[in-house]
Amino acid sequence: MLNELDRGSIKGIHGMGGASMKVLVASWGDFSRWEEVVYKFEDKEFTSKSTLSALCNTIKPNITVIFIPDTLGRDLSSIENLYKKLKESIKDFISSLDVSCDVTVEIVPGIGAFKHGSFIGNAMDAYYLALYKLYKILPKDKNLEVHFDVTHGLNYVTFLVYRALRDLLEILALRRKIHLKAYSSDPFVRGVKELTMHVIEDVDVRPQPLFRSLSSDNKYLKNRDMPKEEFGNLCRRLDCLRYLRMIKRDLNAWMGSIIFGLPLAFASFYPDTIYIEKAIDELVNAYMKNIEIVSDDGKRCIVRRLSFGEDFGTLIKILFIAKVTEDLPHGDELSEDDLLKITDELFKGGSVKYFIKNEIGMISRLIRSYTVTVNNRFQWIKLRDLLRSQGRHLSEQVDVRNFFAHAGLEANLTEIKSDGKSYLRYTTDKVLYGGLKNDPREVIKDIIEKGLFQGQNFFK
Amino acid sequence: MLNELDRGSIKGIHGMGGASMKVLVASWGDFSRWEEVVYKFEDKEFTSKSTLSALCNTIKPNITVIFIPDTLGRDLSSIENLYKKLKESIKDFISSLDVSCDVTVEIVPGIGAFKHGSFIGNAMDAYYLALYKLYKILPKDKNLEVHFDVTHGLNYVTFLVYRALRDLLEILALRRKIHLKAYSSDPFVRGVKELTMHVIEDVDVRPQPLFRSLSSDNKYLKNRDMPKEEFGNLCRRLDCLRYLRMIKRDLNAWMGSIIFGLPLAFASFYPDTIYIEKAIDELVNAYMKNIEIVSDDGKRCIVRRLSFGEDFGTLIKILFIAKVTEDLPHGDELSEDDLLKITDELFKGGSVKYFIKNEIGMISRLIRSYTVTVNNRFQWIKLRDLLRSQGRHLSEQVDVRNFFAHAGLEANLTEIKSDGKSYLRYTTDKVLYGGLKNDPREVIKDIIEKGLFQGQNFFK
Repeated sequence: MLNELDRGSIKGIHGMGGASMKVLVASWGDFSRWEEVVYKFEDKEFTSKSTLSALCNTIKPNITVIFIPDTLGRDLSSIENLYKKLKESIKDFISSLDVSCDVTVEIVPGIGAFKHGSFIGNAMDAYYLALYKLYKILPKDKNLEVHFDVTHGLNYVTFLVYRALRDLLEILALRRKIHLKAYSSDPFVRGVKELTMHVIEDVDVRPQPLFRSLSSDNKYLKNRDMPKEEFGNLCRRLDCLRYLRMIKRDLNAWMGSIIFGLPLAFASFYPDTIYIEKAIDELVNAYMKNIEIVSDDGKRCIVRRLSFGEDFGTLIKILFIAKVTEDLPHGDELSEDDLLKITDELFKGGSVKYFIKNEIGMISRLIRSYTVTVNNRFQWIKLRDLLRSQGRHLSEQVDVRNFFAHAGLEANLTEIKSDGKSYLRYTTDKVLYGGLKNDPREVIKDIIEKGLFQGQNFFK
Repeated sequence: MLNELDRGSIKGIHGMGGASMKVLVASWGDFSRWEEVVYKFEDKEFTSKSTLSALCNTIKPNITVIFIPDTLGRDLSSIENLYKKLKESIKDFISSLDVSCDVTVEIVPGIGAFKHGSFIGNAMDAYYLALYKLYKILPKDKNLEVHFDVTHGLNYVTFLVYRALRDLLEILALRRKIHLKAYSSDPFVRGVKELTMHVIEDVDVRPQPLFRSLSSDNKYLKNRDMPKEEFGNLCRRLDCLRYLRMIKRDLNAWMGSIIFGLPLAFASFYPDTIYIEKAIDELVNAYMKNIEIVSDDGKRCIVRRLSFGEDFGTLIKILFIAKVTEDLPHGDELSEDDLLKITDELFKGGSVKYFIKNEIGMISRLIRSYTVTVNNRFQWIKLRDLLRSQGRHLSEQVDVRNFFAHAGLEANLTEIKSDGKSYLRYTTDKVLYGGLKNDPREVIKDIIEKGLFQGQNFFK
């Protein structure tokens, strides 16, 4: 007999191909205080101090991650000791449960004043670090059945981890089937010995392209509690900030290609993931190195001198999208088949796919009718010139509205060739834009930025 | 000096026109146990048993709603008394705080076994009822600055209320600017007298059209704990279920018109909101009437014999979208200006708008060039016939791909007329579809359902 989850998993992978994995994510508070009760889960009973026993032994996840705030740590002699001892004590606790799966523990920065010390920083850092950890942990090429347990979590940590998880799953859903199920047990009441576990969310996650571009002022790290000069020096020493400033507009153009349905721009602006990954690691290192322990009136204070800015989150999401679309064609010159593949794989769901295919089909018919007249092959020519040879009147001026209305295959920017198969690329010749001759790549970036700005201005 | 929130609000309404309102939503647990502390919020201090004092007195919301689970109620002599006494006690508690705003309290069904009684039902009912309450409370025609406080909430209630709020705000964002800010204070620790309040989310909410259609099996209410025959009788007695079965495909077609960018279908299938509203009220009444109090071994049990199904949530969202788009043109015959207005107002952000305007522009040019030849006016004719008169070869067969690729303005389905201004409508003559003559409205519903099914199949 299949239990409900097994059935879910089979339904989950049906019709989409590819392997499916199960991921369990939980947010935990102070586990040292939990008491043994009977957890009832799907008609089975598990006597345990935690829902983890029931979830692991029933779901049998391939990956299990527990998020805890560092505020649970008691050894405040150094940051290293704080993390090390806390990991040891939660590992001991998990070992004492009867749990059949490997568990990864991730510590995120918490906030609050406790008897053992104070933790001072930006509360949202936990969101950004959960995003960073989950980016590393989540498989990028699998359909996922994700289980999220809120039972034992602190309100704000659960809220932030859920949001980080959800944000990444919505990106994964651009390519994969993602099912999300969330759980909570009955509230713990002293003296009550049986707690039922409930499903509190059960949805197919809908794909969401990212809709926030990297800002003009490089908000990756923010100065929370550092002398201005020291922060300035730190920023100057970080190679990644220079690099990110340099590639920012290319990244925004690439992201926009997914939002606006521009398959050739997607392929041409596909980013270099290795350098972005390094940049993100460098930012996290800088953040971690600037956590200090100070003594205030004999009491220990963990002070996070930096905090993460919103561009840090956007950057992780851009990298994640790149990883999730790594297998799609990219490069400067694309065959018609490659363009169709990108369109089919990336723009499902709405009607954009039909519009784009209409455009590609129209160009393809043009190329084929021209090919016949030139012995079945021709070298790169402007799409504009081909259209003109058919008697169409076209302006030489690149126009924003036209660019979007033709899936980025604007006639002045696009070149075509054929060797029997049709190919497309963006021209490297300067183009007329805003009345002046401009570099075509810069023109494309400018147009997409305009589109993003319009969109974001609306969403603000 | 403006404080941060005031600045947010001014930024919030900038560039979008229309009034802006502030809404505060909080999720609360057992308020009878809270102790007085100093809450620090935006450089001010508030001595209070709750964050409500700080939030109300600083934000000055126009609307304040607090959600609590019914499990906090102690009087289990009847459902009426349970709700009445609980409302009285929370109102007393709020009066004892120094709070300057009117507060609405909404009770949602909670779950768990407590010393004073057990509450048995589907945990997700709280989500559906929060959706129902928030649908009634949220303004439909305003830009909103929404504040959500997780500090005092039970994990699962906070999770469910947040999701309901978020789902509705994403719909509102189709037309309005919505900014969402969430808060949590430092965790409460006995003996610690000062708690800092933190921002844990601060985002512009992105618009999300609904992407779940009403199911084929009418899952509005589910039988949780009722004899099969009684449930059957109940369903037969509910007029709304008959009505909803009847209009289901029209509602799905209308919803699809927003997902797929079909402005004429949007106007033609715009639903009758009064009847849907009545249907939803009838479903909620049936749910509430079937909450029983039973005595089990001398202990009181609240048993919810029904639970809500996913179509109930979808229906509320469809109604909400209708309310949010009430001011847009609808009806069977639309002027070109009306179509452009719908397109501009409903399909912002991505490139779909450009595609649709391209289509409308193309048809508009056709009409104008034809008008000149017929003394500036002509009565309804098929778009197909006009295109043919221009020498275009067109199949008489309505084609799914064509329908979506031309923003629903498929040449066999669409009729046009002109009296100087251009008008469009769907034909009432039968059309060829799948090789057979069919009612055009049924054909449109079938095509959109196919699109939705494809999309949903992918998202599953």
